[in-house]
This record gives sequence, structure tokens and C-alpha cells, in this order.
Amino acid sequence: MDPRDVVTLGHGSGGKMTHALVRDVFMRRFSNPALVAMGDSAVLDAVGAKVAFTTDAFVVSPLFFTGGDIGKLAVCGTVNDLAVAGAVPLYLSAAFIVEEGLKIADLDLVAASMAEAATSAGVAIVAGDTKVVERGHGDGVFITTAGVGRMRQGAPEGPGSVRIGDAVVVSGPIGDHGAVIAAHRSGLALEGFGSDCGAVTGVVDAMYRAGIRPRFMRDPTRGGIATALAELAGQAGVSVAIREADLPVRDGVRTVCEILGLDPLYLACEGRVVAVVGADDAEAAASAMREVDGGEGARAIGEISAPTSGPVVLRTRYGGTRLYDRLASEQLPRIC
Amino acid sequence: MDPRDVVTLGHGSGGKMTHALVRDVFMRRFSNPALVAMGDSAVLDAVGAKVAFTTDAFVVSPLFFTGGDIGKLAVCGTVNDLAVAGAVPLYLSAAFIVEEGLKIADLDLVAASMAEAATSAGVAIVAGDTKVVERGHGDGVFITTAGVGRMRQGAPEGPGSVRIGDAVVVSGPIGDHGAVIAAHRSGLALEGFGSDCGAVTGVVDAMYRAGIRPRFMRDPTRGGIATALAELAGQAGVSVAIREADLPVRDGVRTVCEILGLDPLYLACEGRVVAVVGADDAEAAASAMREVDGGEGARAIGEISAPTSGPVVLRTRYGGTRLYDRLASEQLPRIC
Repeated sequence: MDPRDVVTLGHGSGGKMTHALVRDVFMRRFSNPALVAMGDSAVLDAVGAKVAFTTDAFVVSPLFFTGGDIGKLAVCGTVNDLAVAGAVPLYLSAAFIVEEGLKIADLDLVAASMAEAATSAGVAIVAGDTKVVERGHGDGVFITTAGVGRMRQGAPEGPGSVRIGDAVVVSGPIGDHGAVIAAHRSGLALEGFGSDCGAVTGVVDAMYRAGIRPRFMRDPTRGGIATALAELAGQAGVSVAIREADLPVRDGVRTVCEILGLDPLYLACEGRVVAVVGADDAEAAASAMREVDGGEGARAIGEISAPTSGPVVLRTRYGGTRLYDRLASEQLPRIC
Repeated sequence: MDPRDVVTLGHGSGGKMTHALVRDVFMRRFSNPALVAMGDSAVLDAVGAKVAFTTDAFVVSPLFFTGGDIGKLAVCGTVNDLAVAGAVPLYLSAAFIVEEGLKIADLDLVAASMAEAATSAGVAIVAGDTKVVERGHGDGVFITTAGVGRMRQGAPEGPGSVRIGDAVVVSGPIGDHGAVIAAHRSGLALEGFGSDCGAVTGVVDAMYRAGIRPRFMRDPTRGGIATALAELAGQAGVSVAIREADLPVRDGVRTVCEILGLDPLYLACEGRVVAVVGADDAEAAASAMREVDGGEGARAIGEISAPTSGPVVLRTRYGGTRLYDRLASEQLPRIC
């Protein structure tokens, strides 16, 4: 391979090579007025009376997977953290830690994917940074995004506002992303599905447009839906009862889980939202989500109950119960 | 060593171990109301009519060095990017990519150092994330910070506003940070100095308090003061003339440079600001900086000229000239 086709330590110098890489890859892909100004900080017009601010680091391995790549994940992950906080995502920053030897063509694919995901989610990537580490001190590329959004009127008040009897709604099948990564690493063929990696802004907007004000929302990433709901249970002092019969899990995900001994409730989703709404709003929320892209499989899956035998109680198809707590340690490293 | 004393892949699971690490290290060190809410995003009160937003990734090696560590650097670097854009830094996010096997005590030292630097710079760390990669796929810890600030009235208008005849002022000796890192890596003893790693908010505030409105400011990190001024020259269509006799360089830095064949003008500073002000304001700007911590060595070092033989022209002590452009490739990898 032509040595000019890979990232070298010189690309991390802050000098001409860095400038050329940023110009040829990132500026070309992410171009927008705030970024083009190339100052030390992006300058943004007033964001709103309340501002949401979040960050996530992405270290997923492999970098490219069925249904997405680390770039799409890095944009959608931060967009989703803003969206579930009840914010309209507006601006992202993106910092790259590149391992010497990464193909520039691969970096460009990642940047192109980020640009597409950002456009699709209605956000602009306005600030960035690029560092290079020696071979064997990184792994391809790590991406950290941070995001700024404008808080909505009627944003979720959080765990403390959840009431016994409230309904739990999920925007689509669970565990797709985790199953895809697990399958790639194990050399398993995927049967007709890919990562759910995507922005949840559409399904969240749909709920608000339908007049529904969720009390709590979360994107169940690392640790899966069981961990997200167990955290809610702990914070709210309640239990969450889930009906297995209503829980959407793709056949392909079940197959991967059976072969590899994984539990879909602990598998990461990267394009789903789980929302707690008033019991009377459950069907309207699921129905509003089903009207938009990415929400086709939305379902009411359970309800909030008084504290019982465990934080999350799954009622199985056969009338039994299975208890879930937060994932204790690592089911699958570097899932996102 | 007790295996409980090091970071493991389980700490990256998003489950109980992650929660414990975040609680015992980061929450303990960074505690503030926005962070303690532990939502998916921090929710901030209105930031201002114009908002500055920036990010930087930090991969410095070694993690701990004379005068600072990666944590202090990660806070000050982003604070400084906001400050030189003309913003008052307010909020930071911090994302950690930890290599399996890092001592938790070291991570705690880094977090303590970040907390101290944040308090000192008047910012709150309000959002964070922690990921863990396998041994040999990272290097101790990488930290990416992003920052949000409120733009000042009278923020610098940037390179386009720079005029021929304007003065160039630097807030203190150059190259300290780069020399420290180079010396550590080469096993050279340091003679009476450490990294300048620190926030430039004090010296910037001092200029504004003195009624000075800089046309341009930058913190000359990777690529050093030569690269920062060469970029300015390129963007503004001017040259920058620097007087070697007025350029503050510590004796210890000169020694390191002579031994290792480095040029102090290309060495990173991590606590300096270079400002362009009207010629009549040069002495007042340097004098205002000298009144505050970290600005003791402030000097007017040169002026903006019509485009000439190179972007940056150093007039040597002996009456000759030496030309500087942006650093072409890598003088010193992983300086920050």
C-alpha cells in the first residue's frame, strides 16, 4: 500500500499534515459555517433557555458492521442521549483518536457515514480534533462525540416522576446491535437483520406531536433494556414488570443469543428508546412511534409496579417470572 | 497487585462495575448538581446569546509529567480553546477511554487533578462517559473533553480583523510543556521548570479588565507558537515578524532543545496565549497579563507586517532572519 494512504504520526502533529487530513476528510464531509470558521471553538447562536449537553466515547470493534459503523454510532449515540433527555439535538463535536496505520480511505468512510447520520438527525458537526497514537496503542479509530441541544417544553421529569401503573413502551425490537457485534466477532452469519444503529429523534418527535409527554425516556445501549430499566427501578424506588410475550425480539437475534449464550435483554440497542408514559397513553405512544421510520416495531411491553422481588421482573410466556438486575460485569466488551 | 485495584473490561460494561467506578472516582471528584442528576445529558441554564463549543482529545504520554498530568491538560486545553475564542468557559464534558489494567489509583489521581483544574478555572464537569479497551488496544487512559462557554461582548473578530502594524503579545515563556515531555521521554533531568499546563482564563480576563479588545487570540499548543502564528498569517494574508531578543524562552527549555535538536518555536505551550492587539495596546496588554498568576512573563514579541518572505519571520539577536511556516510533520508525537 502507498504510505500516503495511511494515517501516520505526522497527521497528529498539529501542523501541515494534520491540516491536510482535516481539510481532505473532515471538512469535506462535515462542511457547515460554524465548522468552516475553524476557530478554536465553534460559535453558535443562542441555544435556548435550557441547554442539554452530553458526551460519549465510542470504541466499537469491529469498526464496520452490518447496519452501521463507528461513525454512524458516534453521531447517533450522542443524538440519542440528547433526545431521551427531552432535548432537540442541534450541534455535535467529534474528536478522533486514530491509530497509526489506519487507511485514510477507512477514515473517510467513517466521516462520510457521520455526515450522513448528522444530516439525517438534523444536527451539525461544528467542532473537532484529531490525535494520532502509535501502532499498538490504539485500535483503528476511537471517536468521542459531545452534543448540545435545546430542551423541549415538557421534557421528561425523570425517574422521580414515574408512577405505579405507568406503562413501558419500546420503539422496536431489542438487542439488534449487540447481536450483530457478537455475531461478527464469532464468525456467525447474520440472518436478515443488521444493527438498529440510528437516531431516535423521529420516534421521540412522533410522541410529542401526538401530545404525549413521557415521564422518562432512555436509549438502552450498553447493558441493554434490562440494565436501563433496572437503573430506573433503583432511582424511582419501583419495580418494572415486563411481559415476554409483548417484548419484540427478532428471530435472528434469538438465534445468535441461543448459539452464544447471550440474553437479548442485556444486549445493546443503538436506535431504540424505552419510554415510561401514563397507562392511558401507552397505545397512543406505541402507535405514534409506529408511524415513523425506525418505530415500526413499537410496543407497550410492561408497566411500573410497587417494589417486588427484583428491579425488573419478566413474566415469561409460560407464566413464570425471571428477575433482572443491572448487568453485573461485561457480557460483550466494546459493543459501542 | 490486588486485581480489584486495576481497571478491567467489566468496568466498561455499562452495568454495576461501571456504575461503581463512576461513583467512586468520577462522581466523588467532580460532584456538582448537573452531574449528580446522572441523566443521559446534563441540563444547563441558558448559556447566553452566543455560545462557544469546542472539543479536544488528549493522548499525552507519559500520563504524569512535571507540572501536570493528562487530567489537568484535558481540562485546561478545552478551557483555553474557549477562552481564546473570547468565551467565558462554563461547562465541560469528559470521556475516558481506559486501557484494561490501568491502576484505579492512577485514574483517581487524574480525576482529582481534573477536579482541581476545573475549580481553578471556574468550570463544572457536568457530563461524562467511560469506556474500557483490552490491554494493548489503548495506552493507560485517553481523555476527550468538550466545553461550552458564553461568548463575551468584544470577543476577538479573528484573523480577518488583524491589521498591519498590530502588536503580538505572548503571556509567558514558550515551549515549557513540549520541553518537559521531550525531556521525560529522553530521560533528561529538568532544571528548575515544569510544564506550563494551566488555564489562560486569568490572563485573558486581565486584558479585558484593562479595556483591551484583542483582535485575535490563540493558545499555541501542538506545533508551538510558530505554527499558531503561521496559521494566522495564512488566514489573514499577512506576515508576522517576531523579535528573538524579546521572545521569552527559559534557559532549561533552551538546554533541552539544544540537546535534543528541537526548536522552542515549534514546542507546545499548554498554558500560554498569544494575542494580537492594536500597536498602542501592546504594553498595556503585556502589563495587564503580568499582574495575574501565569502571566508573569508576558511580553510584546513582534508585529504584523505586510506579506514578506515567509509567514513568520524571526529577527535573530544577531540581526539575521529565520523563516518559519507551520510545522510540516511531527516533531514530537503525543505531546497533548
